[in-house]
This record gives sequence, C-alpha cells and structure tokens, in this order.
Amino acid sequence: MNANPKFASADAHVDAAAVQPLPNSRKIYVTGSRDDLRVPMREISQADTPTGFGGEKNPPVYVYDTSGPYTDPEATIDIRSGLPALRARWIAERGDTEQLAGLSSAFGRERDADPSTAGLRFPNLQRKPLRARAGRNVSQMHYARQGIITPEMEYVAIRENQRRVEYIEGLRQSGPQGAKLAELMGRQHPGQNFGAATAREITPEFVRDEIARGRAIIPNNINHPESEPMIIGRNFLVKINANIGNSAVTSSIGEEVDKMTWAIRWGGDTVMDLSTGKNIHETREWIIRNSPVPIGTVPIYQALEKVNGKAEDLTWEIFRDTLIEQAEQGVDYFTIHAGVLLRYVPMTANRMTGIVSRGGSIMAKWCLSHHRESFLYEHFEDICEIMKAYDVAFSLGDGLRPGSIYDANDEAQLSELKTLGELTQIAWKHDVQVMIEGPGHVPMHLIKENMDLQLEYCDEAPFYTLGPLTTDIAPGYDHITSGIGAAMIGWYGTAMLCYVTPKEHLGLPDKDDVKTGIITYKLAAHAADLAKGHPGAQIRDNALSKARFEFRWEDQFNLGLDPDKAREFHDETLPKDSAKVAHFCSMCGPHFCSMKITQDVRDYAAKEGFSETEALRKGMEVKAVEFVRGGSEIYRKQ
Amino acid sequence: MNANPKFASADAHVDAAAVQPLPNSRKIYVTGSRDDLRVPMREISQADTPTGFGGEKNPPVYVYDTSGPYTDPEATIDIRSGLPALRARWIAERGDTEQLAGLSSAFGRERDADPSTAGLRFPNLQRKPLRARAGRNVSQMHYARQGIITPEMEYVAIRENQRRVEYIEGLRQSGPQGAKLAELMGRQHPGQNFGAATAREITPEFVRDEIARGRAIIPNNINHPESEPMIIGRNFLVKINANIGNSAVTSSIGEEVDKMTWAIRWGGDTVMDLSTGKNIHETREWIIRNSPVPIGTVPIYQALEKVNGKAEDLTWEIFRDTLIEQAEQGVDYFTIHAGVLLRYVPMTANRMTGIVSRGGSIMAKWCLSHHRESFLYEHFEDICEIMKAYDVAFSLGDGLRPGSIYDANDEAQLSELKTLGELTQIAWKHDVQVMIEGPGHVPMHLIKENMDLQLEYCDEAPFYTLGPLTTDIAPGYDHITSGIGAAMIGWYGTAMLCYVTPKEHLGLPDKDDVKTGIITYKLAAHAADLAKGHPGAQIRDNALSKARFEFRWEDQFNLGLDPDKAREFHDETLPKDSAKVAHFCSMCGPHFCSMKITQDVRDYAAKEGFSETEALRKGMEVKAVEFVRGGSEIYRKQ
Repeated sequence: MNANPKFASADAHVDAAAVQPLPNSRKIYVTGSRDDLRVPMREISQADTPTGFGGEKNPPVYVYDTSGPYTDPEATIDIRSGLPALRARWIAERGDTEQLAGLSSAFGRERDADPSTAGLRFPNLQRKPLRARAGRNVSQMHYARQGIITPEMEYVAIRENQRRVEYIEGLRQSGPQGAKLAELMGRQHPGQNFGAATAREITPEFVRDEIARGRAIIPNNINHPESEPMIIGRNFLVKINANIGNSAVTSSIGEEVDKMTWAIRWGGDTVMDLSTGKNIHETREWIIRNSPVPIGTVPIYQALEKVNGKAEDLTWEIFRDTLIEQAEQGVDYFTIHAGVLLRYVPMTANRMTGIVSRGGSIMAKWCLSHHRESFLYEHFEDICEIMKAYDVAFSLGDGLRPGSIYDANDEAQLSELKTLGELTQIAWKHDVQVMIEGPGHVPMHLIKENMDLQLEYCDEAPFYTLGPLTTDIAPGYDHITSGIGAAMIGWYGTAMLCYVTPKEHLGLPDKDDVKTGIITYKLAAHAADLAKGHPGAQIRDNALSKARFEFRWEDQFNLGLDPDKAREFHDETLPKDSAKVAHFCSMCGPHFCSMKITQDVRDYAAKEGFSETEALRKGMEVKAVEFVRGGSEIYRKQ
Repeated sequence: MNANPKFASADAHVDAAAVQPLPNSRKIYVTGSRDDLRVPMREISQADTPTGFGGEKNPPVYVYDTSGPYTDPEATIDIRSGLPALRARWIAERGDTEQLAGLSSAFGRERDADPSTAGLRFPNLQRKPLRARAGRNVSQMHYARQGIITPEMEYVAIRENQRRVEYIEGLRQSGPQGAKLAELMGRQHPGQNFGAATAREITPEFVRDEIARGRAIIPNNINHPESEPMIIGRNFLVKINANIGNSAVTSSIGEEVDKMTWAIRWGGDTVMDLSTGKNIHETREWIIRNSPVPIGTVPIYQALEKVNGKAEDLTWEIFRDTLIEQAEQGVDYFTIHAGVLLRYVPMTANRMTGIVSRGGSIMAKWCLSHHRESFLYEHFEDICEIMKAYDVAFSLGDGLRPGSIYDANDEAQLSELKTLGELTQIAWKHDVQVMIEGPGHVPMHLIKENMDLQLEYCDEAPFYTLGPLTTDIAPGYDHITSGIGAAMIGWYGTAMLCYVTPKEHLGLPDKDDVKTGIITYKLAAHAADLAKGHPGAQIRDNALSKARFEFRWEDQFNLGLDPDKAREFHDETLPKDSAKVAHFCSMCGPHFCSMKITQDVRDYAAKEGFSETEALRKGMEVKAVEFVRGGSEIYRKQ
C-alpha cells in the first residue's frame, strides 16, 4: 500500500536544478586546524572594471554557502546513499557515545519491519544509531561549559568570518590600487546593535563562550553527522529557516526532498520538516540523510498521527517514543510546546483568532480534556535527558503566539514567554541547547517589545521568530508582510527567522514559493546584519553597488541573492548579450543614464581636484568651459 | 511618422482588466455638503459567520478606493473622451481663474500643430486651459491660509475617514450582537506616532489647518479637474505613488495608459509619468485626461529631450516653457531638483555610486558645465509664480540621494536636504504646496535619521520617499528590500511612499511588475498606518482575521489587497468550490487545523465560563470529562 504512487525508493534521484553550480561561482573550502575540518564557502568571481571607469581588477567575493555538496562539481550525489558523514570522526573521537544494536523506539522498529513501506524506505543507511554512553552528555553546550572547543565550534567560527579579514588585508597589501579597493569594499556603517556583544572577529573561543553562556546554539544531533555545523545566536549572522513537509492533502517524499535541496541552494540555514501526512517517518529519513543543514521537527505532529488525530489520547509514553525515534534518525532540534500551561488556555478565549499554533492547540486541547498540565511540562526534565543523549536542541514553541494583529502581545502570549524562560533555565541546568520561538502577527511598533521581553525572560537564549507579519490584509503576499517584521526583529536581536512563503494562510508552498520565501528572508536577514553592524556584512552590498555603477551587468546579477531572476528580468527588455556590456539600461536608455553622467562628473572632479570645496570656489569657470569643450558626451560608444 | 506603431488614437480603448469590479465589491459614494461632492469608497460585502462559530451577520467593510470611475458599472468609460471633469464647477465658482485662448507654451502649440503627431493625439479635449487671473493664487494652501474650506478639503476629509465612525456606531446601536462586533472590529492597538498630530476624526477644518500649516498637500492642478482630491501628509493615511512612463528603448502610449489604470485599480494614490522616450507630450495628455489620481512629472526629463539630451544646453527659458506646457495639461506636482547646489556636487565624487537621480545628475552636469548655480535654484521664485497660477505642487527632488547602502546619509545627501528646507520656506511664502523627496538606499538603522532631519529641516512638509532599499544584494526583489524601508519610514512619519517594482535596476516594469509594486507598497503603507495608530486602520485587519478564523475563504480573499492572487494560490492545492467552505485548508488538512481546535477550546471555555482564571481552577476536572464525552471532534462535517 504505497500511499505516494509518485515516489519509489528504487528510482529516487536528485533534482537536477539543485546540482547546478551558481553562475561564476566556485565552491572553495577553508581548512581549519585539522585536515578533515573543511569549511565551504562560495567564491563569486568578477570581471575587471571597464577602462573608462578605472580598469581595475575586482577580486572575487566570498559568501556564506548553505548548499552543501550539491553545488560542488567534485561531489558524487546519489540521494539513495545520502551525504558523507563528515562529522562522524569528530563524534567518535570524543569517546562518549555508544553504537546501539538498533533503533530504540518501538515505532521506529515497527516501521522498519513493515513490508508495506519497504518500497519507500531510504535504502542505504549502513550505520546503527548512536547515543550518549550512560551518564554522559554529548551536547555542544556541555562541551563548551567544560571549556572544550569542539571541531564543530571551530568550523562555525571559520564559517561566520567568511574570510573577511584575509580578504580586506590581502587587498590592502596588494599595492595602491588594492588599498583603495580595500577601503571601498571594507567600509561599513557603524551599526546599532541594542546591546549585543558583537565581536570584530569570530574566534573558536568566542563561539565556545557564547554556547556555554546559552546565547548561541549549534544544532547537530550525533545521528546527523552529514550536517555542516552552523550557529544560531544574536552575536552571529542572522539565520533563516525554511519549512517544508507534506500534509494529508498533498505532496510526496520525492517532492519534499526536492524542496529541501532547493531551499538550501538559495540559502536556507536550517530546514524544518513539518510533515503531517502519510509516511512521516520515511519522509524524514530521506530528508535527514540528504541534508547538510540542521533539520528541525515538531514531534507532537507525528505523535498525534499515532493516536489517529485525537489530541486527548496523547500520552507521555507515545510522545517519548516519538522523541527517541526522531532523535535516532538525527533530528537536530525539536519544537516542543511545553509552555502551554492550563491556566493560559482560557486567556485565549477572547482572542480574534484563538490558538493558531498547531502544536499549541493540540496541547491546549489535551490540557482541557485532562484538566492537568501537559506531559510536556510535567516531563520536561525527562525530555532534557533525551535531548542531551543525542544533542538535540530545544526550540521551545510559542504555542500561544498571536495569529492576528488583534491578538499581538496579549496576556496569553507574554505569559507563555515567561514560562519558556523558566524552562530555559531548567534545560540549561542539564546543559541542553535552547532557542525560543516567537511570533507571529505583530504591528511594527509592538515588535521591539517582543524582543526586549524575550531577552529579559529568556536570558538571551536565541530567539527564533516566524516573521512577524506586520499586517493581516495581504494574503498572497505574506512573505512580504512578514519580511518587514523579520528584518526589524532580526535587527533588534533575533537569531533566526523562520520564513513565510507567499502561500501562507492559503496553501502548501511549492518549489517556487519555497524559493521566494527563502530569498525574501535572506534579504531580510542581511538587512538585519547591516543594521546591527555585523562585521563585514556590507562587503557584498559594496561589491554589488560597485558592479552596478560600473555597468558590470553579469557581476550585478551574480553577486545578488538570485542571479537567475535578475538576469531574466534584465533580458525581458534588453535581451541581447551586447546589452549586458552596455553603459545604460532599459529604464533610462542611453541619453538619460544618471550613473553615466555621474561618472563624467566624477572624472572631471577628480581630474581637477575638486574634492576640496575651497578649490571649487576658485577658478571653476575656466574649467567648466574645458569640460564642455572636452566633449561631455553622456553615452560613450563601446 | 508614428514612432509607436502599436498605438493609434483612432482605436484607443480601455484595458478590459481595468474595468472589472473587484469581487463582492460595490462602489458607493458618500455625499458631502453639496450634491456634486460625492466621495467614492469600495464596499466589500461579507458572508454570515457559519452557525458553528456563532452565526452572526458580518457587515460590509469600507475601504479607500483609488480606482476612479473605472470600477463603477454605472460609468461610461471611453478613454478617447477622458473622465468627467468633476471639479470643474468648484474651480469655476471660485472666480479666480481665466480661460486662455489656447496653450501658452511654445512647445505645446508646436506639437498641437504638428501633423506628424496627429494620429497619436488625445482627440476630444473640448475645453481651453485655465490659469489664475492676474495677481491671484489658486493653490489650496492659499485658500487654506485665507480660512477657506474648499470642496476639495471637505472631499478628502470624508475620504480619509472611510465611514469609520458611522460603521462602528451603526454596529454598536444594532443590538447586543452588533455591540459585540463593534467591540471586535473597532479595537485597535494604540500606536506610536513619534509626535505626529493624529486626529481621532478628520474634519474639513483639520484638513484646512494642516494644509495652511504646510503639513499636508492636495495636489490638484486646475487643469486636471478629472482628479478625485486626495491628501498627502503625515497626519493622514500613508499614500503610495506608482511610477510609469516610457523610455527610448521601450513602450507605447497605449501601454502607459493601461499601466495607469492598472496601477489605480490596485491602489496607486498618485501616478508619476516619467517618460523619457518618444512623444512625451502626447503620452502625458492621454494619461492625465484619463486619470482620477494626481499625476506627477519630472519636467527636466522633457526639457532635456528638447535639447537632444545635452544637459549643458538646458536653459531657464526652455525649462520655463516646459513647466507651462505641463501645467496647462494638468500635471498636479512637479519634481524639481532645485537643491543640487554647485558646492554639493564635489561631495559626490568619492561616493560608491555617485549621483543616481537622473534629474540630479542632469543638474550636476549643468552646474559643472556652466560653473554657476542651476536655473532651478536661481529662478526658484519664478517657478513659484507658475506653480501658484495653476496650483501645481512642488515635489522638491532629492537629486543627491544615495544610490547604495555605502552612500547612505552622507554629506551630499544631508546638505541638499537642508537646502530643500530653505526652498520650502520660499515656496510657503508664495502659498505654494510642497512635499520633499527622500531616499533611496539606507540601512534600517539609519532610516530614522532621515525622517528626523527632514522634519527638522523642512518644518514637517510632507516627506515622499523612494523605498528606501535596506540592502543592495537582491536585484529582482527590490520591491521587498525597499518595502521594508518604506514601511519603517512610513511609520516614522513619511506621508507618501514611492513604489519600487521587482524590475528596479534591471528593466522597465510591465503590468505585472506594476501590480506587484503597488500591492507591496499598499501593505507597507498599511503596516505604517497600524504602527502609527491611525484611527480605524485596524478594521480591515480585524475583519480579515475574523474571516480567516471562521473559514470564510471568499471573504478572506476579498478583504485582502489582491483577491485574485489569494484565490489563485488557494485553488492551486484545493481547487474545488466545496473547499472554500471547508473548515480546514491544504496546509494542515482536516485533522490538524489549529483554528478548528481553538474553536472547540473557545466553545468549551465560553460554555463553562472559563474566562475567569478562578473559575478554571475550580472543578475543571469534571468539565474536562464532559468535554471528551460530548465529542470533541476536530473536524465537523458540513
């Protein structure tokens, strides 16, 4: 009984669109203190500046690369085998894990033995699950608090820096033209970081300290050794998450794997598999084995499937088995709605849109049905024990987040947030990594209150917000209503932004929607990095602006977040290749190009030393005549 | 020699897409103190709440309607005749204008006599141009300062209020259910308005006072009597402008008229015709005669065409003739870059992207070529004389706005802003209406400085900004990079937001891009209204959220900014009509709908009086059992 006739394990293959290198881009690896610590970056090469503008060489630009081996032409990609286990040796070296004989969860064993799902199962996992040895704690927070800098920590330090210092220093030392370029590329507005502890350079020790302090997390389950370490915290680059997952109504395993590879191609830093449909277990296995980014889930969704959708039938035992099942597959963080307390539920009765978090509403229903606090809350320390045995991070769910502008920042929401802060302290007592989920729907002027209270209640544990949407009146455009709020809350201190696609409230996103959501959130996260003054964030803007000013069209496309779209838009009006070296564009045509006029102004000013106001005042009239005589044509023929 | 073979006056016709009424919408008119003062609004009707959710009637919602007669099924639309001159009588009654024998501008007369453009010309303008009688001033600011409340002022007062008070009061008085609904619909978060003078209700006297004070403008040239008055000022709803216009490379008159009707259909409050290509004069005439919204232009573009693109050949005489030509056609506001002073030009030499404003670069080139202050600056009072003779408003151009994050808030930009403030005082001395243009490209944390300095330097004259874009790295998505900045600066006090389309920096927008730009900016403007706490702004969010919660899919679509897109997205995954009354959607499927679960929670809580925490603590266990026994099915059959 294959519920997804479109998908069969035997002929699963990678989406061809996911393995094309991006234009003029090359994957490079920066090696750390050991040979097997190789941090990927994307190097975007650039054309030289045209002679009329100075003729200098433009060095390649390095950008953060979430796409994993898929964009490496050297890598062999076979989704039936999954990605290489790059962290396996680091995990083994620590000597604190044991290999299990098989899956510990009853459900996992049952699925693996079920002949009806054989044709769907991921076929080639050779290894057995790992778990911490008795009495050991394998969380990065635990190591950090012992003063240990793990390879994972060093990896993210290199990754966060993106070769910024080497880049600027290299330019500076390459001669006078390089020094000028270093000045131009390296200049950045001082930011406003609202009390964040921004470091000028990210060192492994800084990473360790932030993790020990609870201010950042590296979500990487020991059973997901395929993952490339990344860090989530307010003192690092702002990250984004992409949600994928099937529902009872639509989608197959193959489509979900394609969405994952598509999401990371465009910049998804983590992916949440929110499947609520058929074959959740098998879908997740395929995703994790092929994902170089951390995978998050909401285990209660699957637990609810196990009790046929009857929330009141959920039990701690079923939930516990689900946590272990997923932890042994390699899920890197769990959304757990342990802050939905019985006494908060009635606070939602007068809301405009009640409880909109699925997990929150399930738990609310459970609480009301049983008239007691939820098993998530009552067994929170038991959950911590599971988390630390696999290094799964908490993403403490905001089950009572507002679902409309009307409900923003209400008593229910803020009460739950306070409870999440209390739970954070408990998790930290166990050295378990934690981030906190946030809203939702919030008008602009109430966004900062969310951030400020989160910092206060949760002691700077990373905040991970869904948007927030800043108005409710634009269904079909909620990637934008929420991109506004996301950029702002990222600036204020949110560490990771959960994307919203154009289909939000209307349907399940397809691949196009996933891409639109990702790009929208990448630009929002980047706008936040700029506003915070994150070191080096402005290099890419500077490089792109320089390319734009110099009419290096290809470079302008390639330095952008979506080269394909930029090229497509340009070509709609000026499709010829020659137009891409033209010193004008379709907006203004050759006679009106302000950038071209500016270059004339600049050439003139530079030639005559006009940068001093005083010089300008004297004798400028003569020079003006020369300017006109010299031929001040706006458009120079190629 | 018809340069646009696709367009011929003889068979010009309205775009069929522009004259469809929006779904479940009806155009209504609210009559003011005189019969010919009829203010259009769009009434969106709603379905009743389903019985399971309460069964109440949901009253229609009234929204601001920029679409003019096009969406009125009673109106006869013939773009060859243009729109009715609804303000003609108001203008005539004032007795301060005279009808001219013909066009005063030499260029205008020449074009009208040119047989080669006969086939392109707007065919049916019966009236002659108007001008203020000698010594008179026909600006709304002049009337306002005399204490006169014009019909235009009363019109915008009614328009801004959108029947808010009647709506809420009507509900309140309609019985207990209505009172409950009034409470729900009327509730709004107190905003943060940064010292704005927000009025609880907009009265004609308030409008007059704001205009007299210079804090708001009504751009409505006496030669554009077809326009429906609208107001731009920080104490009113935030407005948006859509740019259209051909270039030397692309587009025809017909396409530009279609873009205008398309732009106002989706919410463009004003339209700027930025044509720089062929037949600028004739294109503008077609647009104005058919536009119910104010039309703005940048006259220097056309003046430059008249000197074959050689900026240094521009003269005051050519520019003056262009102003009069356009003023007599009915342009409502002119962008004039009079703040580009000679001494500011060298300040741009070390910029990343120099001067990116076309008008700014033209004037900079002129200043350098002639080594003197521009004729715009030197003849500023002469320009004021023209403006007040037709009631054209200034939009003082920011010729030195930053074209990249790198250049944001630099000396050149802020120096020019100060000069614009000085020019504002001169214009006000002449009782000429003024708004101030603003950037551009600005990282989030530097946006507020732009607003604060503008308020200070320009004494609260309305600010009109282009975005600003908050990062440079997303060509193809600059409607979003800039929508973020637009929402924020709108919140801080900007009165009108100039849209940016996805094609920005890449090509000329087509109709799809125009729509995307408009909707993005409408939602940004609305987010700003919410954050400022503009009275009544939240009604539409509340209504849409209520519809969403109650699974009134059609109402959710229709209350949104783009019903067509919302419906299309929904139907991609659940296309059947029955799905639109389903109590679930494709995201979660029937078993997982959090809103449905919430309704169960709410019904239960309400039935048992759980809104009091105390009540909850007592005896809830018994009730919990009842809840389960009573059947807590998540999905109710229809």
